[in-house]
Amino acid sequence: MINNEDLAYLKEQLGFWDKLSQKEKQLLVSNVYSINYKKGENLHGRDKDCVGHILVKSGELRVYILSEEGRDITLYRLTPGETCVLSASCVMNYISFDVLIDAEQDTEVLLLNIGAFGMLKEGNIHVENYAYKVAADRFSDIMWAMEQILFASFDKRLAVFLYDESARNKSNKINLTHEQIAKYVGSAREVVSRTLKNFESQGILKLSRGNLNIINKEKLRELI
Amino acid sequence: MINNEDLAYLKEQLGFWDKLSQKEKQLLVSNVYSINYKKGENLHGRDKDCVGHILVKSGELRVYILSEEGRDITLYRLTPGETCVLSASCVMNYISFDVLIDAEQDTEVLLLNIGAFGMLKEGNIHVENYAYKVAADRFSDIMWAMEQILFASFDKRLAVFLYDESARNKSNKINLTHEQIAKYVGSAREVVSRTLKNFESQGILKLSRGNLNIINKEKLRELI
Repeated sequence: MINNEDLAYLKEQLGFWDKLSQKEKQLLVSNVYSINYKKGENLHGRDKDCVGHILVKSGELRVYILSEEGRDITLYRLTPGETCVLSASCVMNYISFDVLIDAEQDTEVLLLNIGAFGMLKEGNIHVENYAYKVAADRFSDIMWAMEQILFASFDKRLAVFLYDESARNKSNKINLTHEQIAKYVGSAREVVSRTLKNFESQGILKLSRGNLNIINKEKLRELI
Repeated sequence: MINNEDLAYLKEQLGFWDKLSQKEKQLLVSNVYSINYKKGENLHGRDKDCVGHILVKSGELRVYILSEEGRDITLYRLTPGETCVLSASCVMNYISFDVLIDAEQDTEVLLLNIGAFGMLKEGNIHVENYAYKVAADRFSDIMWAMEQILFASFDKRLAVFLYDESARNKSNKINLTHEQIAKYVGSAREVVSRTLKNFESQGILKLSRGNLNIINKEKLRELI
């Protein structure tokens, strides 16, 4: 059970709330929990149970795929106000692949547990339709990520990432290691380090341990 | 308009037929056409109008993405009895990316035109839900293709392709050029040629102009 403020937030985010019967509303409300995940914690993955429908309250989640050899590729990230249904894919018959979800920062979510979500989805076409629409929306992000990885030259890809990251954080300083950046852009650490050094030699940025500073944003933009 | 046989086939394939009102059924029936596409013809793409909902009657369609530099990657193929809604993505608000669709062989489809499909989708949640479910199903194919491209070693990827292709055609002979295979597996022709030659030297297959013969299926299987 959650408090009234959280409930109001949830109702606002769930497009189907008004289409639920009184009984369904009760089922939903009594199966929503506010949950905190620590930075780095895995909340959905291959060997984990399917958790349910997630609404991010604060923090950030990262959704990714992982190869057998441990190579990981970021599909998209979820920030406050965003919902995720791929963490409930086990009750969505038309989705037959798996993603992993980690907390990128300490993150608080409202979680509608998988049993209740499954029942609502089975019993009410508006819930089912909502779920597949949210999934389609995410697939559009995934396609974008894939096209970036498959088609864009690496310089451009990395420049796009740094530019977006800087805009997102409203700062020219990016607090990520080369290893972390490599994971986000779907490449190897060596390739990232090499390209960043190249950017540094062009006067675009300044590297230091564990972070980098964009010193010529205009020049970075020209690469995009 | 279409004949009774085609109509019966269509009703069977469209999960939402029974949920349509009499008026909606009429709208649908009077906006379905049987259309023939020649091998190689493009039926949906960036500069083309969105055609509508497609049901394949005979032949084969290929759905792919294309980079600015002309590199193309096959997402999935559609064979008789399969439907496609990405060719109607312009009326699906939650899908914001574009694919291209070509006829791989002479292909006959039943096409529900985009205007009627859009109206049915807007007016009837069962149609909308059907569309997003079919899309989710295809996205699972897309994720599989992407994982193959991003994660599998090339030898394995090519072996999987040849094995599947042989099973699909019920023949050990594969009538495709190296160029065509490269498109299917999302690689360069040179890489395909090199790997096929390597397979030939291992006694797995025999290459000839424009086709190849799998001569040791067991050995091919071991690569997968």
